[in-house]
Amino acid sequence: MTRVFNFSAGPAALPEPVLRQAALEMLDWHGAGCGVMEMSHRGKEFTAIIEQAESDFRELLAIPANYRVLFLQGGATQQFAQIPMNLLDGRAADYLVTGTWSKKAFKEAEHLAGGLGGRVRLAGSTEADGFTRLLRANELDLDPQAAYVHLCTNETIHGVELGEAAYLPATSAPLVADMSSHILSRPVDVSRYGLIYAGAQKNIGPSGLVIVIVRDDLIGRANAVTPSVMDYKVMAENGSMLNTPPTYGIYIAGLVFQWLKAQGGLAAIEACNIKKANLLYEFIDASDFYENRVERGSRSRMNIPFLLRDETLNDPFLAGAKAAGLTQLKGHKLVGGMRASIYNAMSLDGVRALVDYMRDFAARHG
Amino acid sequence: MTRVFNFSAGPAALPEPVLRQAALEMLDWHGAGCGVMEMSHRGKEFTAIIEQAESDFRELLAIPANYRVLFLQGGATQQFAQIPMNLLDGRAADYLVTGTWSKKAFKEAEHLAGGLGGRVRLAGSTEADGFTRLLRANELDLDPQAAYVHLCTNETIHGVELGEAAYLPATSAPLVADMSSHILSRPVDVSRYGLIYAGAQKNIGPSGLVIVIVRDDLIGRANAVTPSVMDYKVMAENGSMLNTPPTYGIYIAGLVFQWLKAQGGLAAIEACNIKKANLLYEFIDASDFYENRVERGSRSRMNIPFLLRDETLNDPFLAGAKAAGLTQLKGHKLVGGMRASIYNAMSLDGVRALVDYMRDFAARHG
Repeated sequence: MTRVFNFSAGPAALPEPVLRQAALEMLDWHGAGCGVMEMSHRGKEFTAIIEQAESDFRELLAIPANYRVLFLQGGATQQFAQIPMNLLDGRAADYLVTGTWSKKAFKEAEHLAGGLGGRVRLAGSTEADGFTRLLRANELDLDPQAAYVHLCTNETIHGVELGEAAYLPATSAPLVADMSSHILSRPVDVSRYGLIYAGAQKNIGPSGLVIVIVRDDLIGRANAVTPSVMDYKVMAENGSMLNTPPTYGIYIAGLVFQWLKAQGGLAAIEACNIKKANLLYEFIDASDFYENRVERGSRSRMNIPFLLRDETLNDPFLAGAKAAGLTQLKGHKLVGGMRASIYNAMSLDGVRALVDYMRDFAARHG
Repeated sequence: MTRVFNFSAGPAALPEPVLRQAALEMLDWHGAGCGVMEMSHRGKEFTAIIEQAESDFRELLAIPANYRVLFLQGGATQQFAQIPMNLLDGRAADYLVTGTWSKKAFKEAEHLAGGLGGRVRLAGSTEADGFTRLLRANELDLDPQAAYVHLCTNETIHGVELGEAAYLPATSAPLVADMSSHILSRPVDVSRYGLIYAGAQKNIGPSGLVIVIVRDDLIGRANAVTPSVMDYKVMAENGSMLNTPPTYGIYIAGLVFQWLKAQGGLAAIEACNIKKANLLYEFIDASDFYENRVERGSRSRMNIPFLLRDETLNDPFLAGAKAAGLTQLKGHKLVGGMRASIYNAMSLDGVRALVDYMRDFAARHG
């Protein structure tokens, strides 16, 4: 068995110790005589697993007590619908569009708003600039009465990230943030948000699990056409178990949280993520063979799109990378070129191997 | 490692060869250099996995070409909402209630119907008889104009099963069936139904995956407030991949389908299921220590609830069973007593061990 360096944008590489433990426990979890996939979600074994997972997740992100953590299904895409169903409340909501994912969220809310008796507003967009930067404060058209302001804090496809140091929109409306592709990669001040959500398949675990962190006061406003499994209040009251939760995904997420704690938590993983991103960006910026077109203050540490200036070399670049054990580097079709997704589970060695390959490839073809 | 005989109602025991293969492939699937959990759902490896899974599933159930197979999230409980959202179409739908699960489906449809501009009707119920039997044809109050007729063909909690030999309601409206807890346990004539759905966590694989089999003409009627991920048409057009599907669950389901084919398919597994169920029912019926209160023609082969006539012995029974490696036998709190769920992955040896234990326990306490 040879493990590659897997730069997939998601589902994405998981920490090898997590996978080893999962393989070891597949037929018998802690002497239970069965694996986690085979356990009743109401039994004491799985109850211990989900409680530990929530507790570790809360600890890692320092989530205040007035926020509920929900383990749900349907991914971020289902949240695009679930959020207006729960929060629109007959009012208007503001959407900031900084890439494909926030645009999808906006489109889905727009699709549903009429039927829900509310409205959505495009409060700012960088689409005219090709989604290569964050919005600036003076470009925002915010409604002070908005039910909420939606934003995506890391755009997986365009490689734009809102760091904590960057501005957050100045509004008294609750901020609702899609953090799918950078959650747990850095500390975040949860108290600045009303609701945070994240599909698991980047920094958390397998696809099929989405985690929602929601402030107590935003629970209980769901529209009448909201399915019970999509009502935050119902799910909060039932400990995410109105229905059978995605138990195996929650177990894997729990192992990832344990692994993160063993790495030293989010401050330590952030330091490592900064090193990895700097190594790759500095190499690209110093090169006249590769380029990244995202504005410096807006660049993602997790998803780094880059172009070969001679695009006829794209196929040989990818073929050579694969032969060198560097996979999933093809950029999203909307952007073209290449993309290296370097989530928590990607090691500094993996990024070094990529930079070495890129340098070598440029020398051979430059 | 000692594996127990796990009688959990779901999530439930999986075939040991499936788990062994999953453990073996956890870090490296077929030389890909990464595990299935880490693969892009759009890559050629996962495409091969989902296509093989669908093809095997279609073959096992002999699904006609005019039905689509969708791999979705949210379990049967989300389907309780998704079905009226997609099919109610401003009309009325008929619900047959024969246990907790069909009652939940009815309640959820009732909760949403007004907002969807439709109506649901209780077209028959056995609740007054404690859900111990199927509905009889002369008890049904069917609306010939109904958008659909909903039924649950196996009630996991009450142990009531509608076999193919038993009647199906005589109606020209499409039948919509929750088959979660007996799908793949016996052949079924799919063409008699408009839509079949099944949560995976009994006979298919891990929780977090639900499979929907829907006839072409029922696709494309979704109400305007239907989230895109819940619109059968959108999901059919996108090959179940509008969003990232629960990839690992689909992979495990695919391994289960391969295992079923190796057992000889549904006719062979049905023969085994009949043997297992007969062994347990015949023992219970011959005993004056245990009893099953479900009418003979209505009994489930998959979920067999039974009572100890002396209920003060429940705790010693469960403790002794656990010590003998027979787990998850406690009945659902709505019914009390015991329940043995003997899905496809439960061997005849497991049922023999249970009957031996029950005989021994009765001899010691009778």
